[in-house]
Amino acid sequence: MISKNKAKFIISLQKKKVRDEENLFIIEGDKIVREFLGAGMAVKILIAKQEFLSTLSGEATRFVQEIEVVSDAELRQISSLKTPHNALAVIPVAEQILDTEKVFNELFAVLDSVQDPGNLGTIIRAAAWFGIKNIVCSLDCVDVYNPKVIQATMGAVLNVNVYYYDLKKLVIQANEKNIPVFGTLLEGESVYTHPLGKKGIILLGNESKGISEELIPYITEKIMIPRFGKAKSGIDSLNVGMAASVVFSEFLRKSCLIPD
Amino acid sequence: MISKNKAKFIISLQKKKVRDEENLFIIEGDKIVREFLGAGMAVKILIAKQEFLSTLSGEATRFVQEIEVVSDAELRQISSLKTPHNALAVIPVAEQILDTEKVFNELFAVLDSVQDPGNLGTIIRAAAWFGIKNIVCSLDCVDVYNPKVIQATMGAVLNVNVYYYDLKKLVIQANEKNIPVFGTLLEGESVYTHPLGKKGIILLGNESKGISEELIPYITEKIMIPRFGKAKSGIDSLNVGMAASVVFSEFLRKSCLIPD
Repeated sequence: MISKNKAKFIISLQKKKVRDEENLFIIEGDKIVREFLGAGMAVKILIAKQEFLSTLSGEATRFVQEIEVVSDAELRQISSLKTPHNALAVIPVAEQILDTEKVFNELFAVLDSVQDPGNLGTIIRAAAWFGIKNIVCSLDCVDVYNPKVIQATMGAVLNVNVYYYDLKKLVIQANEKNIPVFGTLLEGESVYTHPLGKKGIILLGNESKGISEELIPYITEKIMIPRFGKAKSGIDSLNVGMAASVVFSEFLRKSCLIPD
Repeated sequence: MISKNKAKFIISLQKKKVRDEENLFIIEGDKIVREFLGAGMAVKILIAKQEFLSTLSGEATRFVQEIEVVSDAELRQISSLKTPHNALAVIPVAEQILDTEKVFNELFAVLDSVQDPGNLGTIIRAAAWFGIKNIVCSLDCVDVYNPKVIQATMGAVLNVNVYYYDLKKLVIQANEKNIPVFGTLLEGESVYTHPLGKKGIILLGNESKGISEELIPYITEKIMIPRFGKAKSGIDSLNVGMAASVVFSEFLRKSCLIPD
């Protein structure tokens, strides 16, 4: 049985302000909790029904500081989900300090003001699939520890480092070091024909406004996903999560063809 | 001012049963309503605030049977959105009868038991972008006229025909006529290297179960999106909307390279 105060504390972690103060975030759902345990991640509190706990080996809980057994009703009370699963966990935030020298040697994604939690989650999931290990978000992007983002990543957040950084500073540094800055712009060249590469920034913009004016001058390679076919209506567009998936796919497909 | 009965009727269209009986569905939001009007689609009732109506030309409303001017409070009452825009409209369902002979001559998407409204909306949006004009859904897929699907398509539903059909019957017919059935399966060949083509079925499966057992024997080309890089956790996956975007992109990219 969980104390009222602890339940209240866990619920309070749904707020960014509290997460920032406490340096903690929540993961929810059996699959993702199992993945975090399996990957040997530190867990501050594991809150679960007995039926979930009895499926775990002793090995699985070696990095768990505290376990709370709860009833279905208790879990329902602290969960942010409409239909909670059998487990949730409170996880310490691992401080992510961006080492630009290191990421500049690889291909990485940079997100300018992505607002929708589902979109950030989807992009993290796509990045993990395509082996992109680092994502740099502008300071006004949605918080990666927002429960909806964590949910949408389906555990992929374990495989991708997400940093928050001043993007103008980042692209200036990239320009100085001759690191390519690929930006998705309407007037870009087709991503299918434009030469891509194995390192540099893939810059993706806000859901409705695209890439901010102040970053555009630092783009060194303008790319776009061509639209095919005619349409009755002119509003067809790809959302940023779909665009990211297609662009990542194309970068990785081409990089397989390039000898090391 | 809208009558109580009419308001009630419009709200009732959020239910599939009522939509099916009435052969009507709802679109919400200024942009999508404007697109439907601009494309000359029949509109049974246009419900909007005065400030929206005053921006329309007489031309725009030529196929509108009935206009209801509403206040902000009235719109809020009948809307399915948390923050309603300035307009919504009741649209007659255009009966979609699948002509297999016709779709077999093109590339089209077939969805097996896609359940999430956001995923169906995303797939319609991706199809529209990549010029795929037809989508055939299994009878147990989510309803395309579900307000959340319509919302997620961002108007792309205007450019894509969505049919509901018995998929087993469809793939049997395709096999008889030597129409390729491309299925996304874990053991498939990389979509980057497998020969694709300009016609046939792109079969995508359910969010968690993939393609049903009973359809697998009819797949003539097994494809998959390769995963790149190593991972701490094994649960990385692409969701069906992202997978659809990448597969459509690859089909269209390759078909550009094939002479007609």
